Amino acid sequence: MNRLILVFLIFSSGVFAQHHPIAFATKSELGYVSKSISNNFLFKESYSAIKKDVDSFLTKDIDVPFPKDPAGGYTHDQHKFLYTLMFNSGTLYQITGEKKYAELVKKIFLKYAVLNPTLKNHPQATSAYAGRLFWQALNDANWLVYTGMAFDCIHDYLTPAERSLISNGAFKPIVEYFTHDQKMWFNLIHNHAVWACAGVGIVGIATDNEDYINMALYGTEKDGKAGFLAQLNGLFSPDGFYHEGPYYTRYALLPFYLFANAINNVRPALKIFSYRNSILKKALEVALNQTNISGEFYSYNDALKDKTYLTNEIVVAVDIACQVYGVDSSLLAISKFQNRVILNKGGVDISNALNSNKSKQLQYKYHSAEYTDGANGDFGGLSIMRNGKDNNFTSLIYKYTSHGLSHGHYDKLNIQMYDNGNEILQDYGAARFINIEHKWGGRYLPETNAYAQQTIAHNTITVDETSHYNGKENVAELNHPNKLFGKIGEYKVQYMSVEDTSAYKDVIMHRTNFLIKLPGLNKPLVVDIFKTTSTSTHQYDLPFNYLGTLMKTNFKYQYASNSLSTLGNKNGYQFLWKEASAKNVAPFTQFTFLNHSTFYTISSLVNDSVDVFFTRIGANDSNFNLRRDPSYILRTKGQNQTYINVVEPHGNFSAVSEIASQSFSNIQMIKKIQDDDDYTIAEITVQGKKLLVVQANKNFSQLSSHEIKQINIKFTGPVYVEFDGSTIQ
Amino acid sequence: MNRLILVFLIFSSGVFAQHHPIAFATKSELGYVSKSISNNFLFKESYSAIKKDVDSFLTKDIDVPFPKDPAGGYTHDQHKFLYTLMFNSGTLYQITGEKKYAELVKKIFLKYAVLNPTLKNHPQATSAYAGRLFWQALNDANWLVYTGMAFDCIHDYLTPAERSLISNGAFKPIVEYFTHDQKMWFNLIHNHAVWACAGVGIVGIATDNEDYINMALYGTEKDGKAGFLAQLNGLFSPDGFYHEGPYYTRYALLPFYLFANAINNVRPALKIFSYRNSILKKALEVALNQTNISGEFYSYNDALKDKTYLTNEIVVAVDIACQVYGVDSSLLAISKFQNRVILNKGGVDISNALNSNKSKQLQYKYHSAEYTDGANGDFGGLSIMRNGKDNNFTSLIYKYTSHGLSHGHYDKLNIQMYDNGNEILQDYGAARFINIEHKWGGRYLPETNAYAQQTIAHNTITVDETSHYNGKENVAELNHPNKLFGKIGEYKVQYMSVEDTSAYKDVIMHRTNFLIKLPGLNKPLVVDIFKTTSTSTHQYDLPFNYLGTLMKTNFKYQYASNSLSTLGNKNGYQFLWKEASAKNVAPFTQFTFLNHSTFYTISSLVNDSVDVFFTRIGANDSNFNLRRDPSYILRTKGQNQTYINVVEPHGNFSAVSEIASQSFSNIQMIKKIQDDDDYTIAEITVQGKKLLVVQANKNFSQLSSHEIKQINIKFTGPVYVEFDGSTIQ
Repeated sequence: MNRLILVFLIFSSGVFAQHHPIAFATKSELGYVSKSISNNFLFKESYSAIKKDVDSFLTKDIDVPFPKDPAGGYTHDQHKFLYTLMFNSGTLYQITGEKKYAELVKKIFLKYAVLNPTLKNHPQATSAYAGRLFWQALNDANWLVYTGMAFDCIHDYLTPAERSLISNGAFKPIVEYFTHDQKMWFNLIHNHAVWACAGVGIVGIATDNEDYINMALYGTEKDGKAGFLAQLNGLFSPDGFYHEGPYYTRYALLPFYLFANAINNVRPALKIFSYRNSILKKALEVALNQTNISGEFYSYNDALKDKTYLTNEIVVAVDIACQVYGVDSSLLAISKFQNRVILNKGGVDISNALNSNKSKQLQYKYHSAEYTDGANGDFGGLSIMRNGKDNNFTSLIYKYTSHGLSHGHYDKLNIQMYDNGNEILQDYGAARFINIEHKWGGRYLPETNAYAQQTIAHNTITVDETSHYNGKENVAELNHPNKLFGKIGEYKVQYMSVEDTSAYKDVIMHRTNFLIKLPGLNKPLVVDIFKTTSTSTHQYDLPFNYLGTLMKTNFKYQYASNSLSTLGNKNGYQFLWKEASAKNVAPFTQFTFLNHSTFYTISSLVNDSVDVFFTRIGANDSNFNLRRDPSYILRTKGQNQTYINVVEPHGNFSAVSEIASQSFSNIQMIKKIQDDDDYTIAEITVQGKKLLVVQANKNFSQLSSHEIKQINIKFTGPVYVEFDGSTIQ
Repeated sequence: MNRLILVFLIFSSGVFAQHHPIAFATKSELGYVSKSISNNFLFKESYSAIKKDVDSFLTKDIDVPFPKDPAGGYTHDQHKFLYTLMFNSGTLYQITGEKKYAELVKKIFLKYAVLNPTLKNHPQATSAYAGRLFWQALNDANWLVYTGMAFDCIHDYLTPAERSLISNGAFKPIVEYFTHDQKMWFNLIHNHAVWACAGVGIVGIATDNEDYINMALYGTEKDGKAGFLAQLNGLFSPDGFYHEGPYYTRYALLPFYLFANAINNVRPALKIFSYRNSILKKALEVALNQTNISGEFYSYNDALKDKTYLTNEIVVAVDIACQVYGVDSSLLAISKFQNRVILNKGGVDISNALNSNKSKQLQYKYHSAEYTDGANGDFGGLSIMRNGKDNNFTSLIYKYTSHGLSHGHYDKLNIQMYDNGNEILQDYGAARFINIEHKWGGRYLPETNAYAQQTIAHNTITVDETSHYNGKENVAELNHPNKLFGKIGEYKVQYMSVEDTSAYKDVIMHRTNFLIKLPGLNKPLVVDIFKTTSTSTHQYDLPFNYLGTLMKTNFKYQYASNSLSTLGNKNGYQFLWKEASAKNVAPFTQFTFLNHSTFYTISSLVNDSVDVFFTRIGANDSNFNLRRDPSYILRTKGQNQTYINVVEPHGNFSAVSEIASQSFSNIQMIKKIQDDDDYTIAEITVQGKKLLVVQANKNFSQLSSHEIKQINIKFTGPVYVEFDGSTIQ
């Protein structure tokens, strides 16, 4: 054992050449894979699909074009296609032993060895982080990751002269560009830099270049302030919550897992997969728990809604995770849905497990969870409250994270809601048509910042038509909301109470979200107490970005029949048409809409009266870059304000059977019994019975004792909920 | 044999009581069903689901409420629920022999026998055809159909006194109301009257009342001018095309099939299922061929888009069709998708066939087809041109039918397009939320007539902002377009050319649609030559009601940035916001949009210049009754005008793999080589090659010889298509 460790240490710091392959998988793993193909259905399918694809290019002349086009254009797509082809062909060489696969990879590499030294910054570059083969350096990093693994696979097939030619011609120009010209970028703690480090590190492993490996692990200065380990430390909270949110977790997990896997093979002493209490395992779990039931990642921060866990990135992460952490039934459910595996031992193991679990109903175990944000877990967080069973559950996502780098939104205390797998209260996500040339070469569209990142695009309060932190990223990055108290898990009453004092100079926002399952109702209620405190008078706008069709309101509104105007002229307001509005509505408002087969009613109580707006996105969107989605906005004016909202799924409509049941809300009234520095007490009439929701506004400890004589109740902890005379919790 | 016919004849005109049951199925059929349950998986599932449902009500007190509520309200839903429960329970009595099922039916019938004689017109009635149990007589007819079959099932369980009590108390008041007070309605040739006749006829069969049966078959006057046979004659064209369109075919097929089935049992000599060359078989086939691949019926005329062949009506029709016409593999595919059967011999046969076809890939055989409209096939028609295979095909629907009664739209020469199972160019359908109380009690909303039926809501020309026939149903009913020539089937070039001279007094519209599969393109092109002829100057608006997101235009437009106004103020125009517009655009316009994973480009050439509008529904829609769908409208002014449009699916976008291919149109130019009384000749540049589309404007015979010296071509028949120098057909 000691001898083994010694060997590793010599190995890890030495200059001796590795045995290859070792980056994507070791020789012995690939031997095992090779023997396992015929017995495993899913693996065989995946293998055959890849083989069929690669085979169709074996005899073709392969174009390695001079870079010219933006994302979605020919040269972009071709280079993207080539790195996948090279990696797949390299892997096939190792699995089959057939030289034609190695030859294909070599042939393409030799063209890159000629091309790459001639490249300057890409002509379509729009940022400081220009690429060479692609418009942005990030894509060049993707290229390094895959071609690095491809090189490793054919390492022993190449002559030393060929190896040197490719290392110096194809790889070195890009690695040097990254680690010198783009050193600052390479040393960031950010998903782009994860890719860059993984690329340089994998190339280092493939070409036996210790310097590359060490820069990848510890930053260009090799001091550990940057590089892969610093990224593992800095980008995840101790819970495994990824700083940029689920959409970019998905993206970053690929280089994280691929490079960790390669490092684990060459420097096993690092125990990279156990690093930080197995942070990579947690990261994958947290990412998957932040998906909707058909696999779409939650769309907060910059995100495209159609990204699911079917993407290649998550296939790779799940398959490596199953290899290193063992095949677990929850991951197996995801893999079954993905319906393909990668050609490693993990892929074989999964395929094997699916063979022996054929009849078993596999289901990913979605659960309620509270995640801290920040490297030390002290920079806000995110909670998911769920209730229901099988696929028929309600999810309330409450976001009080820190900003989340350049893809963050100005959305402190935002909520999102999903029900039965449908989006009910949405986060717009980002405005982008990825890789579609017509749409600004597939880049983030200007409307991402101008609308989608602004506060009004979110289900949280905008004060005085100005976004949180005045829309300044550098200010937002320094701040975060603070959790006051919460209880998340398999309870009838879940809640999370958070305060924000930083988004606005003069306004404290305090929002408590409850998910309450009442006896007699099929679905849980969201009870949302949103308090603002200020020393001066402000305008507060609270939108519910609902998806669905208006059914009914309990107030009259004026419809903009023959002309439309915008809700405002800046900070995202300029994109919203006022379809309808109502002035000075009595404080108890109700709005029912239909989403798919379920009705939803938002019942709200505010202090005095409220102005209501039904808006629709579309104003000033001259390139048709935004969806024409609606919003229901409650506006009040004052210093302190308390919104008590109930979001209630109810009833059912079947278009096939033509039956509509319970299309009316079960909520008859909301009253505010008390609302001061001590307590906020809401009395909600549900089907004629009283639901009492009490929250302490000080003494938040779960052990604190409270007594409210006025209504004759005593309770322990910061929250008390009573329905029809009985306590529920 | 002769003796048998004699027996039938005596039987059919006699006063002898039937053996019961005989309406839904005969005693011997039900015996066969009873014995077959355990061996047939799908049948057993369907049986168990019904049994479980009925069993849960056996011991409950059943409320038979006094009618009060509109559709979607309690009393409406309860009576609807009850007739289904009674029918199911009656059937279970016959299958199981267990008296508890008969007792349940009897118990409810006795309540109806007390209730029904007390009823006047329903308080929520809004039309002249008021119901008694429901707001409209149509629903009372539904009730008769099902309770008639239920009575038949328990006929022998009842004492003669009970039978008399129920016949006179429950049935007679409604039958008499239908055949006296509502005689005019009962004698219509219309889907409501089909239900009414089926109801009265089935009650006649169940209660041994020959008078009822004869009124149902031949009208209240028993002269054959009305009643079921007249409906079979009048509502279908000889091809089986149903006059009101597929949405109502679905609805009417249920009483057609159920009553035909009952009549077939009691008056087999009528050979009702062979009637008019098996018109009922054709009717079902035509209905199913007018669905999208996931089963939605095409949405022209008043239609709700989410109605599919999964509805109970089509389950019943398919299962009876399989019983009487035999189990055919195309119907079996539908039944497999429906995943349930009714409890008759057809249901058993299907379940049996599915057992033995387990491994077989069953697929409904969608095909190109031309259907005539009108009882004699001389009142216009409808063509469906399809190209592609498996589920990956393109469908162009060209509508030149007659008006189609009260649910018809003002949409002469309208087209719709589906591709890969997605709607690309839509027909709005109707504005209705069926059975949802919030939405006008579930009735057709005023916006159905005010917008959805108007010409501008369709993909055809509106002249001078006035709908076809000035929106007058009585005028529209008298007229129809005329087919000039066409060729529909498995050809590379399909086409249909139709002229309309009746929609406008002063304008002749002539539209030829081609579906052309070119070598080198994955998908077919729609080429659409739309000519107007007039002696005076008019404004022509041709909308493409596309579904998708704008990607690109080849012209500049002005976007209505900060305020919106409507396209017009009447005939549906008042509902359209002008989101963007362009004046005097050069005559060759291109507009590319993305729908799901495919790009589509509409390329158009008009005579001189064109005004373009991008509109969106929503103006003056103060109850949020309409969807916020877009349209692309090409406006010209002049006397004669020729639009040459190409609608082209191209490329692919995958959000999961992030690859966008061929996002640019393959069409570079459209030129008009000739356009006069003799010929219209379009030259379309496709990927740099010339596509020549020639249509004769006189001498339409398929045998006619044509020679056009100018471009040196000779051809036979009314159409000539050449691509890159080679004829295609």
